[in-house]
Amino acid sequence: MLPPVNLRPSFNITRSSHVRLTVADLAESKNFYVNALGLVVSDEDERTCYLRGLAEACHHSLVLELDEEGAGRSKRIGFRVFFDEDLDIAYEWFRERGLPAEWVDLPYQGRTLHVSDPIGTPLELCATMETRPRLHINFEQYKGAHAQRLDHYQIFAPDTYELCAFYSELGFRNSEYLERGDKLLGAFMYRKGTCLDLAIIENTGPALHHFAYTVSESRDIFTACDWAGILGYGDGVERGPGRHGPGGMLFAYLRDPDGHRVEVFNSHYQTIDTEVEPVRWDAASLSTNARWGLPALEKWYFEASPFVGVPQIPPAEQPKPMSLERFLLEQPIP
Amino acid sequence: MLPPVNLRPSFNITRSSHVRLTVADLAESKNFYVNALGLVVSDEDERTCYLRGLAEACHHSLVLELDEEGAGRSKRIGFRVFFDEDLDIAYEWFRERGLPAEWVDLPYQGRTLHVSDPIGTPLELCATMETRPRLHINFEQYKGAHAQRLDHYQIFAPDTYELCAFYSELGFRNSEYLERGDKLLGAFMYRKGTCLDLAIIENTGPALHHFAYTVSESRDIFTACDWAGILGYGDGVERGPGRHGPGGMLFAYLRDPDGHRVEVFNSHYQTIDTEVEPVRWDAASLSTNARWGLPALEKWYFEASPFVGVPQIPPAEQPKPMSLERFLLEQPIP
Amino acid sequence: MLPPVNLRPSFNITRSSHVRLTVADLAESKNFYVNALGLVVSDEDERTCYLRGLAEACHHSLVLELDEEGAGRSKRIGFRVFFDEDLDIAYEWFRERGLPAEWVDLPYQGRTLHVSDPIGTPLELCATMETRPRLHINFEQYKGAHAQRLDHYQIFAPDTYELCAFYSELGFRNSEYLERGDKLLGAFMYRKGTCLDLAIIENTGPALHHFAYTVSESRDIFTACDWAGILGYGDGVERGPGRHGPGGMLFAYLRDPDGHRVEVFNSHYQTIDTEVEPVRWDAASLSTNARWGLPALEKWYFEASPFVGVPQIPPAEQPKPMSLERFLLEQPIP
Amino acid sequence: MLPPVNLRPSFNITRSSHVRLTVADLAESKNFYVNALGLVVSDEDERTCYLRGLAEACHHSLVLELDEEGAGRSKRIGFRVFFDEDLDIAYEWFRERGLPAEWVDLPYQGRTLHVSDPIGTPLELCATMETRPRLHINFEQYKGAHAQRLDHYQIFAPDTYELCAFYSELGFRNSEYLERGDKLLGAFMYRKGTCLDLAIIENTGPALHHFAYTVSESRDIFTACDWAGILGYGDGVERGPGRHGPGGMLFAYLRDPDGHRVEVFNSHYQTIDTEVEPVRWDAASLSTNARWGLPALEKWYFEASPFVGVPQIPPAEQPKPMSLERFLLEQPIP
Repeated sequence: MLPPVNLRPSFNITRSSHVRLTVADLAESKNFYVNALGLVVSDEDERTCYLRGLAEACHHSLVLELDEEGAGRSKRIGFRVFFDEDLDIAYEWFRERGLPAEWVDLPYQGRTLHVSDPIGTPLELCATMETRPRLHINFEQYKGAHAQRLDHYQIFAPDTYELCAFYSELGFRNSEYLERGDKLLGAFMYRKGTCLDLAIIENTGPALHHFAYTVSESRDIFTACDWAGILGYGDGVERGPGRHGPGGMLFAYLRDPDGHRVEVFNSHYQTIDTEVEPVRWDAASLSTNARWGLPALEKWYFEASPFVGVPQIPPAEQPKPMSLERFLLEQPIP
Repeated sequence: MLPPVNLRPSFNITRSSHVRLTVADLAESKNFYVNALGLVVSDEDERTCYLRGLAEACHHSLVLELDEEGAGRSKRIGFRVFFDEDLDIAYEWFRERGLPAEWVDLPYQGRTLHVSDPIGTPLELCATMETRPRLHINFEQYKGAHAQRLDHYQIFAPDTYELCAFYSELGFRNSEYLERGDKLLGAFMYRKGTCLDLAIIENTGPALHHFAYTVSESRDIFTACDWAGILGYGDGVERGPGRHGPGGMLFAYLRDPDGHRVEVFNSHYQTIDTEVEPVRWDAASLSTNARWGLPALEKWYFEASPFVGVPQIPPAEQPKPMSLERFLLEQPIP
Repeated sequence: MLPPVNLRPSFNITRSSHVRLTVADLAESKNFYVNALGLVVSDEDERTCYLRGLAEACHHSLVLELDEEGAGRSKRIGFRVFFDEDLDIAYEWFRERGLPAEWVDLPYQGRTLHVSDPIGTPLELCATMETRPRLHINFEQYKGAHAQRLDHYQIFAPDTYELCAFYSELGFRNSEYLERGDKLLGAFMYRKGTCLDLAIIENTGPALHHFAYTVSESRDIFTACDWAGILGYGDGVERGPGRHGPGGMLFAYLRDPDGHRVEVFNSHYQTIDTEVEPVRWDAASLSTNARWGLPALEKWYFEASPFVGVPQIPPAEQPKPMSLERFLLEQPIP
Repeated sequence: MLPPVNLRPSFNITRSSHVRLTVADLAESKNFYVNALGLVVSDEDERTCYLRGLAEACHHSLVLELDEEGAGRSKRIGFRVFFDEDLDIAYEWFRERGLPAEWVDLPYQGRTLHVSDPIGTPLELCATMETRPRLHINFEQYKGAHAQRLDHYQIFAPDTYELCAFYSELGFRNSEYLERGDKLLGAFMYRKGTCLDLAIIENTGPALHHFAYTVSESRDIFTACDWAGILGYGDGVERGPGRHGPGGMLFAYLRDPDGHRVEVFNSHYQTIDTEVEPVRWDAASLSTNARWGLPALEKWYFEASPFVGVPQIPPAEQPKPMSLERFLLEQPIP
C-alpha cells in the first residue's frame, strides 16, 4: 500500500530544520513564541526574527518575517542535509526532474538551496548553520512551555500517495500511516530516528497545516495553553490537550497571532531500524477521537497556512472528517 | 452579596466524606473506578462495593450500590463531623427546623445520621469510620490515575443564594463565587482548609453534578483519560483536560458506566484564614473558556445524577450558558 | 506512648504561619528565596524582606531580617489562631503557666502575641494579616521551584515527649511519630488538616532544624536543586532529592546563604479525622534510608538555626543516628 | 584534542541495541527489571530472559542469562547496523585489523556477528531482530518506572583516547567529553541522533560500568527508586536522583540483584548535525558535584561488571576522583 522506500537515497536529508513564516506584527509574534512556547531569539532585526528551541544548537528553527500585506503565510520549510556535497547532488537531482532548484544566500546558514517538491511545496536545504549554545539546562532562561526543539511539519497535499512516493525516493520512511481501505490519506514520514519529520495529509495543498515543537514533560503541554491564555490567545488553543491516535503522544495545537498553527507535544518513540513495519490506521474504523475526548474542529481539519506564491490544488475527493461540528449534529437528541 | 457565615456553627462538619451512587452493573462500575481512577476496594459484597482513594485512611469515600432498575442516581452525599456529640446536636438542629433527620445503622461507619437540606439533598453525617491503611506510597497497588482522595461535590440547586445561606449557617465559607451582576449563580464552599467541599450551581435540583477526586500531578489527569479510553469510556471524557477559571486547578471530567460524572483534578490552595475575601467571578464578563480552549458541552451544563426519591425544582430562570454547541453556532462563518 | 491530646484546646491555633530569620546580606538571601524557591516579595525595606509562596493570600510566610552580627539565627516561628479572641485567651493561658507572653506591634499583621513554649521556643501568634492576591496561576510570575506555601517547621527539643505533651494540650495531634522502644524521639504534629505543622526531634534545643515549603509536582523538587546550583548554592543541596520514611513525600533540603535549612517537598495526605491512629516508626528497625538511597549527613542530623537569645539544652542522651559518615565507616571493606 | 571522526565509516552502526548479562537467579533478576524498571518480557526459557522497553519494537534490549557460577558479568554489548550487508563489511573490517570476528546464530535476531574492539570489549552486531508491538501507550502494561528504551552503555577503558579513536573511525562522534588538561578521560559518543550510544571512561577495563534506559518524565526517576525500595533493593540506589554535568539530564543509578548497574534517565538532546562542536568539560575545574548535591561513592567510580573471559588492563594512571568518601574526609571539621 505504501510506496517503495529508497534506503540509499541520492543525497542525505537528515531532519526537518526550520520554517519561515510571514507575520503582520513582528513584536507580537515574537512575544507569542518567546513567552508562550519559550523559544529563544538567536538574532533579530526590524523585519526578521530568528528563534530556536532551548535544546537547539543551530541558529534557528523558526524564522518570522514581517510582511504587512501578506501575513499568515508560510515561505518555506527547511531540511538539513548531512554533507555540504549533498546540496550539490540535490541541485542536480531536482534539476534533472524538472523541479525548481536555485542557490540562495541567507544569513546565519551555510550554502542554501531552494527547491520545490512536485506539488510546489517550497523547500530550503542547507548543510550547516551558525551555532549557538544549547540552553536546555539554562533554567534561568526558561520561559513559557520552554519548548526544546522543532520536530516536524504537517502539510496538505492533493494526493498523499504521490507525494509520499516522492519523499520515499528521498529516503523518508513512514512510522505510521492512515488509509481508508487501500487509499492512503495520511503519511507520517521521518528521516531522523524518531516518528516524524514530515506528515502529509490529503487536502487542498500544498499548505502548512502545522509545525511542531517538543516539550519535556506532559505538564508543559498545559503550560503552553496557560501561557496562550495569559497572552490573550486562549481562544487559539484550538485542539487538545489530548492524546494522538497515530504516534500516541500528548499534544495541544495553538494558533499564533497570524493564525499559523503550532503543535506542542511530548516525545516520540525511536525508529531507525528497517525491519519494523509502519503502523497502519484505518480511517473507516478509527473512532472520531482516537483515544478519548471530543473530535477536532472543522477548521482544524481544513485551515492551513498557504505557501507564498504557490497555487493550491484540491484533492480528487474532498475530505469529510468527523469534525466536532458534525459529531455534535449527529448526536442523538436525548 | 454572599450570605453571612456563622463561624461558630452549632455543630462541626469537618469535610466532605463519601458519596453513594446506584449502578446497573457492579463489576463494570468497580472496573471503572479501580482501573481508571485507581480507587481501592475496602470491602464489597454482591450488591455493594466500598472504595477509597490511595491516601485515605477511612473506609470508603465512594459506595456503589447495585440497583438494576434505578441505576444512575445518587443516594446521598456524606459529610464528616468532628465529635460524635456533633451528631446529636445536628439531629436536634435539623429537627428544630422541620428538616428530615433520622438515625441509621450502616456498615463500616460509626453512628450515622440521615438529614436533608431545605431543597431535599439527602446528606449522611457520621463522626467515624473503620480505618484502613493509607496506601499513598504503596506504589505496588497503584492503578490508573491512582486518585488520592475524595475532595468535593458539586450539586445543582434551584436557588444558589438560598442554599448557600443554609450551608453558611453551618459554617461553610466560600473560597470563590460566581455572580451575574448581584445574582449569585455559583457558590464554591468549604469546611476543610482547602477551596471546596460543596459547590452549588443554579440549575434544576437537587442533583449531583459531579464528585471530585484529587490526583498527585498534572500527568495523572492525562492518565485518567487514557484509562477511560483503554476501558472503552473514551467518549465519556466529557470535558477537558483543561484549567478551571475559579480555583485555577487542572481538571478532566469523566462519565462513569452509569453516566455519573467524576472529576479528577490536581490540588487546591489552602484556605482556613478568616480575613481572606472570597474571589468573585462575574458570569457576564467571564469568557466562555475561563482560561483557554473550548467551552463545555451542553450536557456538561445540564445533566446531573438525580437523588433517589427526591423531586427536583427548576430555577426561576433557566441557565443559558455559552455551551460548546451555542459557541459553534454563534461563530462567524468564514 | 503518645501524650493525651486535648481535642478541645483553650484557644484555636489553626496552622503554622511564618518564620523570622536573621540574615547577613538581605539582597543575597532575597535572591535565594525569590529565584531558587520562587517566593514572592510582598514588601521590603532596607532591613526586612517579607516573602510569601505563590498560593498564599496572607502577607508573609518568611520574614528575612538583616542582622550583620547575628545572622543565621531564627527569631520566631509563627502560628495563626482562628479568632482574634483566641489571642486574648492565649495571653492568659501562657501567663497562668508562668510562660512569657507579651503583646507586640508588627507591620502587615493584626494584633500579635509573643509567647514561648516551656523550652523557650519563641512563638508569634496572630489572627490576621494583610492580604495579597494569590498568584498560584499567575504563571508569568513563576520563578525557580515556584514554591506554593509554607507548610511546617521542624525543631529540636531536649525532650520530645515533654514538648509533644505541651503542644498536645494545645490541640496538636501526631500524624506519625518515631520511637526507640517506648522512648519518643520524633513527633510529627499538625493542627491544619494535613500531616504537619510542627515536627519535634530530640536533640539540643530549642533550635530550628528546618522550615518547609510545598511545591506542586515532583519535578519542582529537581528545579529547586537546579536553581540552587545556578545561584551558586549547589553544595548546599544537603540532602535529597529523596523520599521520606514518615509521611512518604518527596523532599530536598537546601541550605540558604546563612545556613538556614529549607525543605521543599510535595504534598501531604489529609488528616482531620479523630479515629485514625498515628503511624508509629521504630528507630531501631528503621533502615538508615527509610525508602532508598544513602543516609543523611551528620550535619543534617545536628546543625540547626539557634533562636536569638534562647539558651539551648542538650538531651539526656546524645542522638547517634546512622549518618552517612557512620554508614560509610561501617561498610564492609570489599 | 579529540581524535578525527570518519563521517563516512566503512559500515553503518546505527545505535546501541542490547546487552547480555549473567545472573545468579533468573526469577529474581526478572522481578527487578520487570517490576522496578518496568521492562517487558519478550520471551524467556529456563536459562534466558529477553526483555525490552515499552517503546521498543525490536525483540530485546536486555538479555539475562543464568550463570550460577559466573553471575555478575557482562557477556556482550550489542549494536545495530543499518543493512545486512554492513555485517559482511564489518566482518572483513575486523578481520583485516586482526580483531576477532565470527558469525554466530542467536535466537530472535538476524544474522549476527561477534567482534571485539582493540581492548577486548565483546561486541555483537546484527541488522535485524524479530519485532514485537511497541507498548508505549499500552498503559495497562505499565509497571514500575515503565522505562521506554535502552539508550547507551558506559564502559571502562585503560586508555580513553585510543578507544575513542577506534570508535571515531567507525563513525561515532562525541557529544561531550571530559579532559584533564589535554588528557582525554571521558568520551561521550553517539551514532544515533542523540547524545550517547557509548561512553568511554578511563579506568581498568574493559568493563561495563552501566547501561541506561530512558524514562518519560522526571517523576519516573523517583518511581524507579521507589520500586527498588519496594523490592528490597533500596540500598542499591547507589547514586542520585541527581542531574548530570555532561548532558544535563536527570538520573538515578540502581544496582541490580547481581550488582550490575543500570541507569534511568530522562531524555537527551538531539545531535545529528556535523557543525556543532562537542562540549568540553575540564576535570580539574569540574566541581565534585557538577550541578548540585553530593559526589558519587567510591564504588560508583570503580566497580563495573567485567566481561566474561576478557582480561582487564589498568590505566597508566589510577583515577583519583573526588568521591563521596574523599569529599567527607577533606571537609573542614567545624
